[in-house]
Amino acid sequence: MTAPGPKALVPFVSVEHMMRIVHRVGLRPALRAIAGEIEADFRRWESFDKTPRIPAHHPLGVIELMPTADGETYGFKYVNGHPKNAAGGLQTVTAFGLLADMATGYPVLLSEMTILTALRTAAMSALAAKYLAPETATMAVIGNGAQCEFQCLAFAELCGITDVRLWDIDGRATEKAARNLAGTGLRVTSCGSAEEAIEGAGIVTTSTADKRNATILSDNMVGAGVHLNAVGGDCPGKTELAAGILHRASIFVEYPPQTRVEGEIQQLDPDHPVTELWQVIAGTAPGRRSATEVTLFDSVGFAIEDFAALRWARTAALETGLHAELDLLADPDDPRDLFGMVMRAAPADD
Amino acid sequence: MTAPGPKALVPFVSVEHMMRIVHRVGLRPALRAIAGEIEADFRRWESFDKTPRIPAHHPLGVIELMPTADGETYGFKYVNGHPKNAAGGLQTVTAFGLLADMATGYPVLLSEMTILTALRTAAMSALAAKYLAPETATMAVIGNGAQCEFQCLAFAELCGITDVRLWDIDGRATEKAARNLAGTGLRVTSCGSAEEAIEGAGIVTTSTADKRNATILSDNMVGAGVHLNAVGGDCPGKTELAAGILHRASIFVEYPPQTRVEGEIQQLDPDHPVTELWQVIAGTAPGRRSATEVTLFDSVGFAIEDFAALRWARTAALETGLHAELDLLADPDDPRDLFGMVMRAAPADD
Repeated sequence: MTAPGPKALVPFVSVEHMMRIVHRVGLRPALRAIAGEIEADFRRWESFDKTPRIPAHHPLGVIELMPTADGETYGFKYVNGHPKNAAGGLQTVTAFGLLADMATGYPVLLSEMTILTALRTAAMSALAAKYLAPETATMAVIGNGAQCEFQCLAFAELCGITDVRLWDIDGRATEKAARNLAGTGLRVTSCGSAEEAIEGAGIVTTSTADKRNATILSDNMVGAGVHLNAVGGDCPGKTELAAGILHRASIFVEYPPQTRVEGEIQQLDPDHPVTELWQVIAGTAPGRRSATEVTLFDSVGFAIEDFAALRWARTAALETGLHAELDLLADPDDPRDLFGMVMRAAPADD
Repeated sequence: MTAPGPKALVPFVSVEHMMRIVHRVGLRPALRAIAGEIEADFRRWESFDKTPRIPAHHPLGVIELMPTADGETYGFKYVNGHPKNAAGGLQTVTAFGLLADMATGYPVLLSEMTILTALRTAAMSALAAKYLAPETATMAVIGNGAQCEFQCLAFAELCGITDVRLWDIDGRATEKAARNLAGTGLRVTSCGSAEEAIEGAGIVTTSTADKRNATILSDNMVGAGVHLNAVGGDCPGKTELAAGILHRASIFVEYPPQTRVEGEIQQLDPDHPVTELWQVIAGTAPGRRSATEVTLFDSVGFAIEDFAALRWARTAALETGLHAELDLLADPDDPRDLFGMVMRAAPADD
């Protein structure tokens, strides 16, 4: 058999490649670079095709496709959410994604996105806080699962956080996060309650995994001037904040048609005022307006963030050489002669 | 670095693997097996989630996602259509697809689908003809591009066609197809016009590639009792048959909401009567009703056909061992410790 031609090969970033890219680039520089790509894309928000996710539901979870395109490049992410997976030793959320050249339809990158989604979610949170949070050195993190350490390092890199105060309903999760964060330069305090964790914190990140309407933060726990980074509430029936907080806060969202269904604001009237974060980043809407304002980034994750992260991954993979070439596309000498290509490929030893 | 665990690995069928599978199984048995999978899925049509394709348009072409699910298994195909690609030595249509377990959200197959789509399109055409075509040994094929030879062999295998009569506006395409079909057991006649090609043919397949409203067959060319297999008209603004033929024919389609936009029947009123092919296969609607009836399968390709083809590909790949294992999914020992997995993966030599 002849080797496939270069047009047939698609750069592929495996999980192993992604981990090696993160080590080669450095985790904090990677988070800063991804935040930069997201920031650039949020500034040109109006140039993207936007659509809510396309879901396929099952009693145990959901599989979603998240496509977007900017007129030159097309991207989509495949992502699942299966809360009971962890009990069977599987990831609750796994993902992969693709970029393609819209002028030819040919894919130009296939990448794992379980790790990349963790990076972009943290980068997105810290980018939003750069525009919305008060001056502070301290962040509380309620919920110390898979997202926790990425959040801490993104806020260290982009917002100057030096102290993180951790709490989780499961003490082993907090121990895991504290152990992982040792040696990163952050001062880590493991707390015995959510109330203790938020003491002195100018930023409160919630990233719990319960698939239900929980109240991780009650109204009286949130003082004036705090920035809330609500990461965990991200599907219908899954919220983390008491409704009272939402009524006091200035709320910033990614894409309202999606956030009103999936975010904390699913608890509010469908016409409750919110600000689209891209407008703040583009300079057409105000971010934080006073030292006493409570700001809330009601994060659910949007396709444009994945698109930006995939662009970073492609550049990093090509620059470092840390990728494989996947024989994903047929490449006959004569495009009309697909049959001939298949027939001439008869292996001598088969 | 430690090797990824088995949960992280997704079977991957490359173009090379797919070609080797076709040679190992045999092309005609493969076409028969895929037709069998499609037939089984059309019989249980109502158990599928169905949705029109999700397109992203560009002046030079379109990229589409085609998802479907049967409650246990999820599948989607990525496919592009870029008519001007051939001029640059690229495929007009390339595709890949995925199957996933809906109970966990984990992918269970990633496969090239450029070749697989060619196989399933031919298998689908021959399957439809099994229910709709008159007794005949002769098929005309108007348009001798990438789909032509696959159509001929699928009709030989499933419908007993022994004679094919080829015509293309580009004689080199006909020469290519005739050369490829030599030695397959089919009697091949290269014709000088469409009129000559359809002489004595009980089945007429049209599979041209022009992206415009062409008239490959005019009304007076189609005699009583013929079955028309219209493969090439498959997007808005791209049709092959004169409207007069459509008014005389009994029309069978895959999924009406998609065919009314993409198929030959885009030329008709939106309420023109059509029969859904799955009902014929399930036995709840009649197929051919008389020897003089003109039947038309207005084929555009639907997600369930890809789903069935992917299931065949997965079985064939696992049975033959002709696949790779793709490190697409992160597989930490503790699903909450994604960060730890990334950090512990620090390569010694980086």
